[in-house]
Amino acid sequence: METYGFLGLGIMGSAMAKNLIKAGFKVKVWNRSQAKCEEFAALGAAVAATPAEVTSSCAITIAMLADPAAAREVCFGPQGALEGIGAGRGYVDMSTVDAATAQEISTAVTAKGGRFLEAPVSGSKKPAEDGTLIILAAGDHGLFDKTMPLFEKMGKKSLFLGDVGRGAEMKLIVNMVMGGMMTIFCEGLALAEKAGLASADLLDVLDSGALANPMFKLKGAQMTQGMFDPAFPLKHMQKDMRLAVALGDALNQPLASAAAANESFKRAKGMGLADRDFCAVLKAITS
Amino acid sequence: METYGFLGLGIMGSAMAKNLIKAGFKVKVWNRSQAKCEEFAALGAAVAATPAEVTSSCAITIAMLADPAAAREVCFGPQGALEGIGAGRGYVDMSTVDAATAQEISTAVTAKGGRFLEAPVSGSKKPAEDGTLIILAAGDHGLFDKTMPLFEKMGKKSLFLGDVGRGAEMKLIVNMVMGGMMTIFCEGLALAEKAGLASADLLDVLDSGALANPMFKLKGAQMTQGMFDPAFPLKHMQKDMRLAVALGDALNQPLASAAAANESFKRAKGMGLADRDFCAVLKAITS
Amino acid sequence: METYGFLGLGIMGSAMAKNLIKAGFKVKVWNRSQAKCEEFAALGAAVAATPAEVTSSCAITIAMLADPAAAREVCFGPQGALEGIGAGRGYVDMSTVDAATAQEISTAVTAKGGRFLEAPVSGSKKPAEDGTLIILAAGDHGLFDKTMPLFEKMGKKSLFLGDVGRGAEMKLIVNMVMGGMMTIFCEGLALAEKAGLASADLLDVLDSGALANPMFKLKGAQMTQGMFDPAFPLKHMQKDMRLAVALGDALNQPLASAAAANESFKRAKGMGLADRDFCAVLKAITS
Amino acid sequence: METYGFLGLGIMGSAMAKNLIKAGFKVKVWNRSQAKCEEFAALGAAVAATPAEVTSSCAITIAMLADPAAAREVCFGPQGALEGIGAGRGYVDMSTVDAATAQEISTAVTAKGGRFLEAPVSGSKKPAEDGTLIILAAGDHGLFDKTMPLFEKMGKKSLFLGDVGRGAEMKLIVNMVMGGMMTIFCEGLALAEKAGLASADLLDVLDSGALANPMFKLKGAQMTQGMFDPAFPLKHMQKDMRLAVALGDALNQPLASAAAANESFKRAKGMGLADRDFCAVLKAITS
Repeated sequence: METYGFLGLGIMGSAMAKNLIKAGFKVKVWNRSQAKCEEFAALGAAVAATPAEVTSSCAITIAMLADPAAAREVCFGPQGALEGIGAGRGYVDMSTVDAATAQEISTAVTAKGGRFLEAPVSGSKKPAEDGTLIILAAGDHGLFDKTMPLFEKMGKKSLFLGDVGRGAEMKLIVNMVMGGMMTIFCEGLALAEKAGLASADLLDVLDSGALANPMFKLKGAQMTQGMFDPAFPLKHMQKDMRLAVALGDALNQPLASAAAANESFKRAKGMGLADRDFCAVLKAITS
Repeated sequence: METYGFLGLGIMGSAMAKNLIKAGFKVKVWNRSQAKCEEFAALGAAVAATPAEVTSSCAITIAMLADPAAAREVCFGPQGALEGIGAGRGYVDMSTVDAATAQEISTAVTAKGGRFLEAPVSGSKKPAEDGTLIILAAGDHGLFDKTMPLFEKMGKKSLFLGDVGRGAEMKLIVNMVMGGMMTIFCEGLALAEKAGLASADLLDVLDSGALANPMFKLKGAQMTQGMFDPAFPLKHMQKDMRLAVALGDALNQPLASAAAANESFKRAKGMGLADRDFCAVLKAITS
Repeated sequence: METYGFLGLGIMGSAMAKNLIKAGFKVKVWNRSQAKCEEFAALGAAVAATPAEVTSSCAITIAMLADPAAAREVCFGPQGALEGIGAGRGYVDMSTVDAATAQEISTAVTAKGGRFLEAPVSGSKKPAEDGTLIILAAGDHGLFDKTMPLFEKMGKKSLFLGDVGRGAEMKLIVNMVMGGMMTIFCEGLALAEKAGLASADLLDVLDSGALANPMFKLKGAQMTQGMFDPAFPLKHMQKDMRLAVALGDALNQPLASAAAANESFKRAKGMGLADRDFCAVLKAITS
Repeated sequence: METYGFLGLGIMGSAMAKNLIKAGFKVKVWNRSQAKCEEFAALGAAVAATPAEVTSSCAITIAMLADPAAAREVCFGPQGALEGIGAGRGYVDMSTVDAATAQEISTAVTAKGGRFLEAPVSGSKKPAEDGTLIILAAGDHGLFDKTMPLFEKMGKKSLFLGDVGRGAEMKLIVNMVMGGMMTIFCEGLALAEKAGLASADLLDVLDSGALANPMFKLKGAQMTQGMFDPAFPLKHMQKDMRLAVALGDALNQPLASAAAANESFKRAKGMGLADRDFCAVLKAITS
């Protein structure tokens, strides 16, 4: 029976790896802090001391790191994943990285005869635990097919989007739409309040018609109570808005709404809300 | 058994009146073109020759007219609804009118001892037929309570929002959020296309996560096929965006996203798309 | 020797009328508060008790009132200017009014056989005193020609722009450009400060190159000292931005920069700066 | 008598170097294409074969290269300027480069015991020829003072702005204000045309009042004739708008007007106007 590698056991990675183990896959894990690995050993996972040890012994290794810097370090660092990559070995990076980082890792992996797939996800902690992530894959199509049985346990939907970079771009576009929806939602809430309408009534109306969506429902309830605990920190949303506007720049696509939303997120950041949830942009709009 | 008046048997009004008849209410109808009334006579409705004949013989009369001009004409015109209003008679105007028109009708009705409720709806033809409209009522609370049994057959949710004018404003705010969501959605589609991503993939991802909403699903499918048949004409959406921005002006509420969206709808209008569906703003963003 | 009528001796009107008297014209004045007229009697002007007395005895009467409401009152009120208008008499309204008010006065004056010219000015107290206003005339071209000798003493430039309404629109467009220049100027000042650059250096550089203009020079010096005494109140600028955006709406002309600037002025208004100078929009941008 | 080095004899550099020679300074020049040097030899300049030959023999060397890539190449390339830098030798880079490039060159020069000053200029060919540039210097204050006699022959104003990087940022901010002024100017022209007002009249009014500036006067005349020959290419302006918005991002300074203007320049770029003059943004606003 095949053993699959898994690098990175943070909030996301550990939930995803557990779903693989629960589904009966044999998994060999590595994590920067070894303490985290013990929990997985108890669940029956093999534990490796270095990323290279994982990639050199598994046909397919999945990585789920915190950010582009961590993704690079785990791949290119001493005894990193790249060292263990050999002919035909697959490396599936599910971390959220920019297109350039994905491209660089891809080039290095394939130069050693390996196969590469970027596969960032849409969804956070809860969908990771529930195995209902949306997986935005791009790169080696054959590797995508071979990894599908694992994707099916981690996500509810997996798309193959083309060349390396397309996955990162799709995620950026989705986040741009999310940020734009949030700002117009906040403007609606702010205008309703100024007009003497109850926020609860607006939320109720929005949730009853064609605009109803889980984000308005979940965040709306929190926002009207002044709860801005960070599920997706505002500074990350602002960064994504900025990158989306820059992508539009590179592709000559005007994005007036996204640009206006970006300025509102910027204002919120300037107000000291960088580490609050991105729905705290409400404060920049009402103040 | 009580007879309820119903003025206006257009696309919306006729679907709503039929739901009342189907539910067993006795209804007396009037319509500008009498031909339309015959269909209702066949269903068992009484037919009146003038609006005044309806209001003078029913304790509660509902009006559902095409626009503010029609709403005024039916109320204030010769043999209009106002003539039949007497002490305690209720007039429920479900037409979409501006706050000023609602206020004017309210003042006239109450000056004659009548009771007034504005009750514009969110939702178009299909929800009207299905009895799943959202009713945004404001004005006389007692009249709202008395009309509730009828609202329950026409809508799935009825809110009482306060003084006359609040109903019109709530509808405006909802439409502003709708317009803003549509422009950021179009920017996402435009950017995806420029990036070489399939529109179908973006729609799929959006429909699978926290942003999923009926509008993106319904309109997205049409837009990617270049279908812009008007369900809600773009010129009406642009007008609502303009009025929402003006409301923000009157209330000192900055609305940067709404203002940016308004300019995109304006551009679309200038491109000859005024009478297409409001999702045709996509063309202004991609051109 | 011809006598010319002059209605309205406020800050602007009194400066303009004095320039006419100084140039040797015979003038008959009227002002709501008669006290103000005494000063002009001392300068040799005839004084009338009502607007009608002026228009009925002068071939050409100039009006310079505070706002559209005052312009209407002086024209249409009891013993107003309109009463004295007869065949061939000219009425030159230099007040700043909207196109609709100008049109209404024009229609009334010409219906009585009179001739009408709207002639709002660009420039405030200082240019009025110096006789260096810019006069934006529209309406009766013959009356424009006949009034030219007077315009030459009040302004440094007089343009004839076409049908009634064009004068008001030209003024609106100029103010829109002014508001847009002010917001980008404020954004430059705000960005420079955040970058650790001295405001004085930015002002110096701007004043030395192709962007140098009297407004940046005058206002810039005041703004960096936190002086926002109202020369042109912010609420009036915001109103003009709103009207310009609405004119773009009516003419299907997208105005993304003007719309964005309008939102900044709106924010400033909401911060309690309505009655400060329009350059106080700086505070909305830096806060 | 001191000899000063001068690297780069393009349109700008050759005009600037000539002004130095004309003023009586002894100059040693180098240019990538040696042909250009002959003209300077005829004027009495010494000619060097490499940048290093210049820097190793002059106490102060001025560089005026086309872009950041050229500035790096001339400094860091084989036999580049850096090779000739020794203790106390000054390197004054007047090329337009980003803050990061300026910083990198500065670090390298000072590491070898040299002194560094960035000194980008505001103004193009004509002011370079006339010696009326505006010089935005930052870095080594002592070197600034020592170079002042040369600056005085090349520019009409020289500012010392602080640490290395401040010069590049000041130039960016000035260009951001320029781009914002241009878009609101275009919106004014577009709105005037739609309103039936003559462009010439609007230009005339703008040029007569507090907004009058050389850019509106020069570009306005060209724009109304449809002349968009590139003095400052639109793609460079769009890049500067993008960098200014990004600087605002880094400094938490919202820039709504600049962001809106950036989108208009982006639209123009997408219309194939990248290589036309930046005033061709008019076409993106009127189309």
